[in-house]
Amino acid sequence: MGSDSDWPVMSAAATALAEFDVSYEVGVYSAHRTPGRMLSYAQEAASRGLKVIIAGAGGAAHLPGMVASATVLPVIGVPVPLKYLDGMDSLLSIVQMPAGVPVATVSIGGARNAGLLAVRMLAATNPELRKKMAEFQASLEAMVLEKDENLRKTAAQDS
Amino acid sequence: MGSDSDWPVMSAAATALAEFDVSYEVGVYSAHRTPGRMLSYAQEAASRGLKVIIAGAGGAAHLPGMVASATVLPVIGVPVPLKYLDGMDSLLSIVQMPAGVPVATVSIGGARNAGLLAVRMLAATNPELRKKMAEFQASLEAMVLEKDENLRKTAAQDS
Amino acid sequence: MGSDSDWPVMSAAATALAEFDVSYEVGVYSAHRTPGRMLSYAQEAASRGLKVIIAGAGGAAHLPGMVASATVLPVIGVPVPLKYLDGMDSLLSIVQMPAGVPVATVSIGGARNAGLLAVRMLAATNPELRKKMAEFQASLEAMVLEKDENLRKTAAQDS
Amino acid sequence: MGSDSDWPVMSAAATALAEFDVSYEVGVYSAHRTPGRMLSYAQEAASRGLKVIIAGAGGAAHLPGMVASATVLPVIGVPVPLKYLDGMDSLLSIVQMPAGVPVATVSIGGARNAGLLAVRMLAATNPELRKKMAEFQASLEAMVLEKDENLRKTAAQDS
Amino acid sequence: MGSDSDWPVMSAAATALAEFDVSYEVGVYSAHRTPGRMLSYAQEAASRGLKVIIAGAGGAAHLPGMVASATVLPVIGVPVPLKYLDGMDSLLSIVQMPAGVPVATVSIGGARNAGLLAVRMLAATNPELRKKMAEFQASLEAMVLEKDENLRKTAAQDS
Amino acid sequence: MGSDSDWPVMSAAATALAEFDVSYEVGVYSAHRTPGRMLSYAQEAASRGLKVIIAGAGGAAHLPGMVASATVLPVIGVPVPLKYLDGMDSLLSIVQMPAGVPVATVSIGGARNAGLLAVRMLAATNPELRKKMAEFQASLEAMVLEKDENLRKTAAQDS
Amino acid sequence: MGSDSDWPVMSAAATALAEFDVSYEVGVYSAHRTPGRMLSYAQEAASRGLKVIIAGAGGAAHLPGMVASATVLPVIGVPVPLKYLDGMDSLLSIVQMPAGVPVATVSIGGARNAGLLAVRMLAATNPELRKKMAEFQASLEAMVLEKDENLRKTAAQDS
Amino acid sequence: MGSDSDWPVMSAAATALAEFDVSYEVGVYSAHRTPGRMLSYAQEAASRGLKVIIAGAGGAAHLPGMVASATVLPVIGVPVPLKYLDGMDSLLSIVQMPAGVPVATVSIGGARNAGLLAVRMLAATNPELRKKMAEFQASLEAMVLEKDENLRKTAAQDS
Repeated sequence: MGSDSDWPVMSAAATALAEFDVSYEVGVYSAHRTPGRMLSYAQEAASRGLKVIIAGAGGAAHLPGMVASATVLPVIGVPVPLKYLDGMDSLLSIVQMPAGVPVATVSIGGARNAGLLAVRMLAATNPELRKKMAEFQASLEAMVLEKDENLRKTAAQDS
Repeated sequence: MGSDSDWPVMSAAATALAEFDVSYEVGVYSAHRTPGRMLSYAQEAASRGLKVIIAGAGGAAHLPGMVASATVLPVIGVPVPLKYLDGMDSLLSIVQMPAGVPVATVSIGGARNAGLLAVRMLAATNPELRKKMAEFQASLEAMVLEKDENLRKTAAQDS
Repeated sequence: MGSDSDWPVMSAAATALAEFDVSYEVGVYSAHRTPGRMLSYAQEAASRGLKVIIAGAGGAAHLPGMVASATVLPVIGVPVPLKYLDGMDSLLSIVQMPAGVPVATVSIGGARNAGLLAVRMLAATNPELRKKMAEFQASLEAMVLEKDENLRKTAAQDS
Repeated sequence: MGSDSDWPVMSAAATALAEFDVSYEVGVYSAHRTPGRMLSYAQEAASRGLKVIIAGAGGAAHLPGMVASATVLPVIGVPVPLKYLDGMDSLLSIVQMPAGVPVATVSIGGARNAGLLAVRMLAATNPELRKKMAEFQASLEAMVLEKDENLRKTAAQDS
Repeated sequence: MGSDSDWPVMSAAATALAEFDVSYEVGVYSAHRTPGRMLSYAQEAASRGLKVIIAGAGGAAHLPGMVASATVLPVIGVPVPLKYLDGMDSLLSIVQMPAGVPVATVSIGGARNAGLLAVRMLAATNPELRKKMAEFQASLEAMVLEKDENLRKTAAQDS
Repeated sequence: MGSDSDWPVMSAAATALAEFDVSYEVGVYSAHRTPGRMLSYAQEAASRGLKVIIAGAGGAAHLPGMVASATVLPVIGVPVPLKYLDGMDSLLSIVQMPAGVPVATVSIGGARNAGLLAVRMLAATNPELRKKMAEFQASLEAMVLEKDENLRKTAAQDS
Repeated sequence: MGSDSDWPVMSAAATALAEFDVSYEVGVYSAHRTPGRMLSYAQEAASRGLKVIIAGAGGAAHLPGMVASATVLPVIGVPVPLKYLDGMDSLLSIVQMPAGVPVATVSIGGARNAGLLAVRMLAATNPELRKKMAEFQASLEAMVLEKDENLRKTAAQDS
Repeated sequence: MGSDSDWPVMSAAATALAEFDVSYEVGVYSAHRTPGRMLSYAQEAASRGLKVIIAGAGGAAHLPGMVASATVLPVIGVPVPLKYLDGMDSLLSIVQMPAGVPVATVSIGGARNAGLLAVRMLAATNPELRKKMAEFQASLEAMVLEKDENLRKTAAQDS
């Protein structure tokens, strides 16, 4: 991510990866304060054995796109909302990449989904991880059924 | 995609895949006109051997998110711009997914990048494809150098 | 609705229906976490005797449109505002439906109006309900007259 | 509608109603140029036997909301896009109604959906109309299947 | 205004008028809850001797435009911000009036300026009021000079 | 106005004034290219006998607000749309004035309404002009009735 | 700046200048409340020896552009966010200047960057200041490295 | 600039510099296609004797900010409008830079102003250039006076 102030948002990506036992590393690589170091990290990522890079940034959010320009790996961008504009600047700065250099953008503040998207990418060629993702989706369904049951009780009591 | 009217935009994804010799299939699966068939397609995609799904849609663009809800595969969403709002409705309808079900969103009308992102995902575990992507990125760089040279000549003649 | 977290907003629809003695059921049917179950609910709604469906959702709010795609009943969509963007993403995701599958969209967070709109739909062929709606509208008028009187007193005291 | 200049957009609502053999009347009732006449029309609509009112307007689009304020019938609002702002002003002016007076809003320029929504409302208590709507939805599905087939041929020839 | 909930915003207009000894009346006239009464008020305003009408409303803010449609007096519209969208819906609903029926729109929440604008309108043909407005503007200038002096002291102490 | 390129939009204000036999003058006074001359014009306007000033400008549209800052006359601002952003920048630059200095803002490109608003302001203390405005409004109503009749014929022939 | 209420935002510009030992003066010059004095300040700035002017304003933010119209010095504009619209009105009012009169606009609330931009401008012809700026940028890089190290520890402890 | 497709917009900056006899160089340096080369250019710019850098880019416009991160020179950013969103994405991607790394942003498509802003920066320490800028501003004023005269004739003939 571009700053440690993004960690409260971005840590949800780490949590998601940990839930799937996918190993990861975290780091602060600022596109604007350490441009050379950021590019080096991106250039070496594939040969170091990384498979996917998740990059979160806010405002004029250049980190995901710049990382994508310097690696062949898929890059997932998380628009971090700052004090003004509700993350709309972050979203447009990340998603509107020119032809040739894509960034896989998730929702504003959607770091958890960034982690889950990384898992899906890895699962595409990993049967075990794919099975875990199927179980995860089944658990989402079960959770909804439980909420449904509880809400019907609540609503019945209210009326 | 949700309608054949999206093909002029979406065909650029097919072209990108073809450039990398990645095989693909195309189809019209409307979230709103054939919801059951769309869900079946998504549910069977992984077992049929697909690795990535690219879904383009416009307006209240529900196709990418609904496909993502019914598969464990990574889903790439392309916001197709319609007659009004310049694709802002399409973008928000695709990217703002709730936690649990990510869609890898690219730029408005960015179907070529959707194809390239799919290649990157596959390349993460495919050395040959990764090499091709590196060559592609080098060709982008060469193209810029050529444009740079031409522009300097043009600008010199103008002044 | 798509999640029990929407209930604080959506309960106002239930309250409005109750005020008109219109019976209703509530439930959590997530477009993204339980897509098949959500479609089944929509497909069976008409034969189960339901007359109108109210669906609230936020962000990439696909629930109302997907329900509308699988039923012949009128579907009312309530854009639920989430943490960012003030519900603008919810509104566009619900209202910008393609030709063929309409959703009757109300204001951001406007669940009470969703309930009242459902009553108006039922009242179109129900004289008794229509009479109640006319009385309700008269009560709104009376309420404004009372507010008007009070405000004039307040303003007179202030000056 | 508020002006005959809205007819090119609004006529699609009439076409949709005609397809379902639902009788209708058309008229120009301007909220801003004939306010009294517009209110009278709305006040008398229910007793004249109308079941649903479709109102289209653009810019500071007050017609749908004002009609809704003076009738117990359900009112469907169509945001007509004008020369600037792509209909965003029309949409917000129609959909953001205060609690008490709902307008069933459809997409920007979505007059066809307004007609179909009116049919759904009437069909809720009309089995024959409901059957027609089910057939209509089946025809949408058939149309998608045909487009799907054609596109697969096109795409195969392209590659 | 459309509701007594607008009074905390709109009272600033009354204050401004009082500062210039311009007499005024206040009232709640809802476009959507009391449409007939609202129109009657507008229609009779000129013959009752009113010179300017200030109308504040929020969301789908139809009050200023509807009042303008039923009077020959100049109407000043105040976009009142509601819970969502920061008053952008109110602004567009008020300012985007069709040709023929203008509303003099002030800033979001700008009730004080609505009062001052009314004073300017009256002052155009009232020398005494015009003199007061000139004095008021001179007082604004004096206030800025005082703030300037204080700030320079503060800034000097800070450094 | 700020530039002669605004004349195609702004001439509609002149036309409206001419229709009511209200005399006017036109001129180009750029806030950014002739700031001193623009302020002088505003400062002398009242003593020269002008009653209302209409100012149109686009983009960072400072002319109406700056004129308002240097006169006691009511100033009407017309947001002129430029090549990008559909006049949203012009609208916000004109309408969002700080407390103390109001600008009576009309719709984007709404120069005709600016002229009509000026007439209403003058009519507030001019019985003859008020009568003309009432006749104008009656003519708007007659025009709608004619359009209504024609449209009913057209629609009847179409079906 | 236009008001002392802008000081909490704008003081960050002063702080940045002080960090680089660049002398500066602060003042309140309102475009709308003291237009003549504001223009005089701008007109005399160059001959008084000033090199750069930083102007902050909010809403219909005319100060930076008006100052730029009356000086040959580079003017830096800071969009100050007000109560509504998150500074989007301020940004557009400042940045969308017509050809001929530029304003160097920084981010919403970005007064610190305004100060740093002024330093860069001065440093272009001042080797010592340029060296300080290079050191400052190196310190930003060091700060990121430290944050990186700390975050890695935190993340390691969390997992 | 980031691509030769930006030249039709950006050439206006070159024209402005040429009008002031300020020497310049042009080049294509893509942030996303040649990140390393772009950074090198920025890092060496100051020591090569450049005084100001103008960078234009569209969409997720990272070029100006990335160049600013790697140089101590002032960087002027020009938001180039692309096919969709009217340059709003370009504007936000350029202007919303984080504290520490400013970009002097001009209007959407405002390359001429970028050139003029560069001249102002250089003129701050160059009396001759400052004189030229004053003459240029006087010529703008003369041009307005001529337009004013012509328009008054046109308007007089029209009426």
